[in-house]
Formats: sequence, C-alpha cells, structure tokens
Amino acid sequence: MPSIEFSAIGVIRTPYAASTGVPIQSGTAGEVEGTIEVYAEYADGLRDLAEFEFIWVLYHLDRIAGPQLITRPYLDPEQSHGIFATRAPARPNAIGLSPVRLLGVEGTTLRVAGVDMLDGTPLLDIKPYVPEFDAFSTERIGWYRGRTSRGVVADARFEATSKR
Amino acid sequence: MPSIEFSAIGVIRTPYAASTGVPIQSGTAGEVEGTIEVYAEYADGLRDLAEFEFIWVLYHLDRIAGPQLITRPYLDPEQSHGIFATRAPARPNAIGLSPVRLLGVEGTTLRVAGVDMLDGTPLLDIKPYVPEFDAFSTERIGWYRGRTSRGVVADARFEATSKR
Repeated sequence: MPSIEFSAIGVIRTPYAASTGVPIQSGTAGEVEGTIEVYAEYADGLRDLAEFEFIWVLYHLDRIAGPQLITRPYLDPEQSHGIFATRAPARPNAIGLSPVRLLGVEGTTLRVAGVDMLDGTPLLDIKPYVPEFDAFSTERIGWYRGRTSRGVVADARFEATSKR
Repeated sequence: MPSIEFSAIGVIRTPYAASTGVPIQSGTAGEVEGTIEVYAEYADGLRDLAEFEFIWVLYHLDRIAGPQLITRPYLDPEQSHGIFATRAPARPNAIGLSPVRLLGVEGTTLRVAGVDMLDGTPLLDIKPYVPEFDAFSTERIGWYRGRTSRGVVADARFEATSKR
C-alpha cells in the first residue's frame, strides 16, 4: 500500500505531558485551555477563523501505541469493541479529531478551551464547526448508549514507549 | 518538517467520478448512496459498528489541487477566506471529514448515505458519531451565517490534473 504523506502545520500546547488524567473527549473536557500554534507559513489560512465559536482540530496521535483492531475503551470496562466503533486512539491511522471552543486568535496562536490532546501534539488541520454540516441528533450510538464521557479521564493504556 | 505517514485502510465507492456535480457537504448531501470497502486486514476493527446511525469518515482528498491558503469557497461567490475558516478541499493536509449515515454493514463493506467523496477515494479512518462528543449548537459560524449547503454542488475549481 503506498503511503500517504502529511506534515505538521503547527503544534498543540496543553497542560498534559502524558495520557494519565487527560479528559477522554474534548466535547466534555470542560474549560481546560490550551493553545494551537500554527506555523508562520500557514498564517494566511487563518483569515476569518476568529468568527467561529467551535473548530475541529485534526492532529497526529504521535504517542499512542497501536494499532489495536479490538480494543478496550475507557467507557466500557466490561467489553472490547472494534476500534472503528470506538473513539479510542489506538487506530490504524493515528488521526485525532476534537471539536474545541475557540476563545481567541492572536497572530498564528489560537487560544482554545476543551483540550484533550497531549502537549506537543502535531497539528494536521483546522476546520470550522458548522452545525448544518456537523450536528446530528441520534439515539443509535451502539455501546455508548447510557454512558457519558463527562468527568472521565484517561490512564496509560494506549501510551507508546516511544514516538510513533 | 518530518513527514507523517498514513496508508489507506480501504476505498470509498460513490457515483462521482469527478468533482462537478458532487454535493459540497455530506450533511446536506441527501440520500445518495455509496459504499466503503474496508480492506480485509482491518475487518476486526468493524465489530459493533453496525449499531451506529452515523459515522465520521476521514479520507485522503487525493484529486484536489492545492493547497490554497486563501480560497474562494462554493458558498461565498463574493469573498475569499482563509482555508482553515472554510471546508474547501484545497488544504495543506488534504484530509477530508464527512459524517455519513450508516445503512448497513456486510462483511467489510459499509453501505452509507449522504456521500460527497469522489469514487475511489482512499479511506483513512472511521469513527462512530456520538452526539455528546460531536453535536454542538452555535450561531457563531462566521461567513457561513445565512448560507446553506443544501442543494449546492461542486464545480471543477479544486480539481487536480493528476493524483496528489
């Protein structure tokens, strides 16, 4: 399989040096703040971004062991699930996706709230959050039904011993 | 900048051989169906996925010219915007993100509705859609305010002459 090559367009700064204690989902991570430092060469791409309340952040899960096709996610202590039926990080392609609240843009630095990434995570993309495109209502959420990520934090189970 | 390497975990089949006429957003693409063919080696990762109504599909925008840091998106004929303030495909890292409705899973083939990808698009990841993680209400949507992607289709403006 030919490889598909991307490169970091910036770096994500958060209070989290390691997985243990990190909120498992940005949507329920609360008000913990971080910054996204976009590299200067991409500055033009940020024009008009400050007018959005939420943004999608795509990033490289660079310190995750894996992949695990069958995984034991944080929210289900009893049963394993296929990795594509979970948001666990040990994915074949280690791409993270988090919606965060955009608090401000100053030059190429974005101040955001609701971070669930490790400090130093390589940034891949930013997309504006638009409810017409992104917000759906459904009760068909498989094994997540009746569970909540609110207040749940990670342990070291998915941590790599070296950078991926 | 060191490159970050991913590889396709499957291929997306849609009725669209070229950009012109493709819905510009999956969320408003309606009921056009496609299939996602996950490669056999990742079959285990699909366990329990059939119980979700919506899934996120991440893929490689492999036939898009670019990047364009300042871009003229489909929904604003009058003004250009920074690429990160748009969902336009001409991004520095050509990663597409679409929520689609999962109609069924048969072996490693997923039948989905609401496709906005070109036929043959390389699949990077699948994540389950969970409203607690993904659905937010906001009116702060910048230049998208007062516009809708419903019924809007693409032209060839972002098309590459060769595969990226």
